[in-house]
Amino acid sequence: MLKFNEEQQVKDIQGALELRPEVENIVDEIYDRGFDNIFYLGIGGTYASAMQAVTYINGKSNLPVYVQHAAEYYTTGNKRLTKESLVIISSVTGTTEEVVHATKMVKEVGATILGFIDTKDSLLSKICDYVISYPNPGTEQLKFFMVADRLMYKQGEFTDYTEYYKELDEHLAVGLVEAEKEADEFGRIFAEKHRHDAMHYFIGAGNQWGAVYSYAMCYWEEQSWLRSKSIHSAEFLHGTLEVIDETTPVTLFIGEDEQRPLSERVAKLLPRICGDSTFIDTKDYKVKGISEKYRGRILTVLLMHAVTQRIDAHVEKLNCHPLDIRRYYRQFEY
Amino acid sequence: MLKFNEEQQVKDIQGALELRPEVENIVDEIYDRGFDNIFYLGIGGTYASAMQAVTYINGKSNLPVYVQHAAEYYTTGNKRLTKESLVIISSVTGTTEEVVHATKMVKEVGATILGFIDTKDSLLSKICDYVISYPNPGTEQLKFFMVADRLMYKQGEFTDYTEYYKELDEHLAVGLVEAEKEADEFGRIFAEKHRHDAMHYFIGAGNQWGAVYSYAMCYWEEQSWLRSKSIHSAEFLHGTLEVIDETTPVTLFIGEDEQRPLSERVAKLLPRICGDSTFIDTKDYKVKGISEKYRGRILTVLLMHAVTQRIDAHVEKLNCHPLDIRRYYRQFEY
Repeated sequence: MLKFNEEQQVKDIQGALELRPEVENIVDEIYDRGFDNIFYLGIGGTYASAMQAVTYINGKSNLPVYVQHAAEYYTTGNKRLTKESLVIISSVTGTTEEVVHATKMVKEVGATILGFIDTKDSLLSKICDYVISYPNPGTEQLKFFMVADRLMYKQGEFTDYTEYYKELDEHLAVGLVEAEKEADEFGRIFAEKHRHDAMHYFIGAGNQWGAVYSYAMCYWEEQSWLRSKSIHSAEFLHGTLEVIDETTPVTLFIGEDEQRPLSERVAKLLPRICGDSTFIDTKDYKVKGISEKYRGRILTVLLMHAVTQRIDAHVEKLNCHPLDIRRYYRQFEY
Repeated sequence: MLKFNEEQQVKDIQGALELRPEVENIVDEIYDRGFDNIFYLGIGGTYASAMQAVTYINGKSNLPVYVQHAAEYYTTGNKRLTKESLVIISSVTGTTEEVVHATKMVKEVGATILGFIDTKDSLLSKICDYVISYPNPGTEQLKFFMVADRLMYKQGEFTDYTEYYKELDEHLAVGLVEAEKEADEFGRIFAEKHRHDAMHYFIGAGNQWGAVYSYAMCYWEEQSWLRSKSIHSAEFLHGTLEVIDETTPVTLFIGEDEQRPLSERVAKLLPRICGDSTFIDTKDYKVKGISEKYRGRILTVLLMHAVTQRIDAHVEKLNCHPLDIRRYYRQFEY
């Protein structure tokens, strides 16, 4: 299989899960001290992960948690982000300009900053109050959700936290590589069919909204240089549907959280107005050892990524386009 | 001038401004009673207007105000929307399925609902605690901002509220029709050039983010059946930029609020990577009688709409495509 190192991928997920004692110590300390609001702060891909974490928490918890866009923070500001607030960030390089700028301001306000910063000696690492370094960008959502889960546990809103993580610790990593193997043939066919699309529409809701947002922008546009548009399932029905016809390539991500019905509604409509639609439904990927009731949490987020990763690997090869090159980003000053 | 009734348009804006005593009475009553959180709730176009109002307030106020997507509300929920909350909605027909569904749930929670419902005897009118009916969809943002301004005034955060509205009452309506006249030739040229674009990118930030979001979706996609993608100026630099080249049609909306620098950064980059970009800068439209310091509030929101309205009028005529027809929306059940 292309770009697939089973052993390494299992190790990566297992390693992220092993951060849990460290996450728990930090979150418990912050929780016991108290806070007014929680902000997941990001830009681009980390903004998408922040949206996923916040949608996840909103569906299950009373915690005052919000997404804060980094660049909107240092321009518009947010008076409800105070010295009593908790701000959670993530960065691979630790140098993302807008996040550094925003985080410096957050620091001045005096909020507590918890950062998953993969580069230990970076600017961002120095600004954070708590830093967890585990250089593996593919586990960002898992890290964000681990914080969310611990916060909900402390809040008394996740009583079976221990059982839940026992299942993840034992079955998540292997479940994901198995799903990738299962999805590879789909990924190849999809890549062959769509690798020259003039435009591709990606639709999703719930924790799949952040997934389509980042998949269209960070993978198709940024990495594969393919044009794509992401649209929330509920918003699709209020405008975008009118430009869809027989030949428009549309892919719907269907997850398993509270917003699944919004995507199911689109799934019902699409075949009537579009001759080129694909549904990726996480329900089609069984994962041994993870209870049904836990699937709508982190599992479906990572399952969707496992599937789209197969598409990307084939697009990269077929289009003769290395995913790590950029035309403009960080190539010159602007 | 095409589709331009100067007298009627002045009357429409003036009429909306004359709702102010009614808005003030309602807001004062609600404010004096107290609330925990404020939610602008919407979907599609009203979701975009909600984003504009909330971004506006966040830049100037300490009010706990949030955007709440209607369909996300009745699926994911929001435990911080309580019986002490204020929910603000807007609807032309008063029957938008998702908003009716969400608002019914909000009613059960017991929050106070203030609705700008253009159809008096509609379902939504009956659900709201306070209804203001002024059948003019073009004034939705002005209504949302009037509520915002009064709330900030009550909060002690808008001390020159009276002077501000004196200027709007006297100069806004005429200023907007003058801007439309000024923009008409630009609108015609833009329409002629772009009316067959396979895809058009619209970029903006601050209160222009809601503007590009709704312009791409509710005008180009829904009304003109033209493909378009909206992207926030800050997000554009984190992915979408990579698919831009010499021949990609891109239009940047530049406003005058706190996020203007985010769009100026894109304005600096675009000419270096794109041979088909257009900047619409509200600064190019002087409006007599409105002080410089007040331009970044509702004025620039409505100015941008005045300009894009000229594009739409010409596209409608040139493309022989009536803007009020729909392929799918409300044409059949789904």
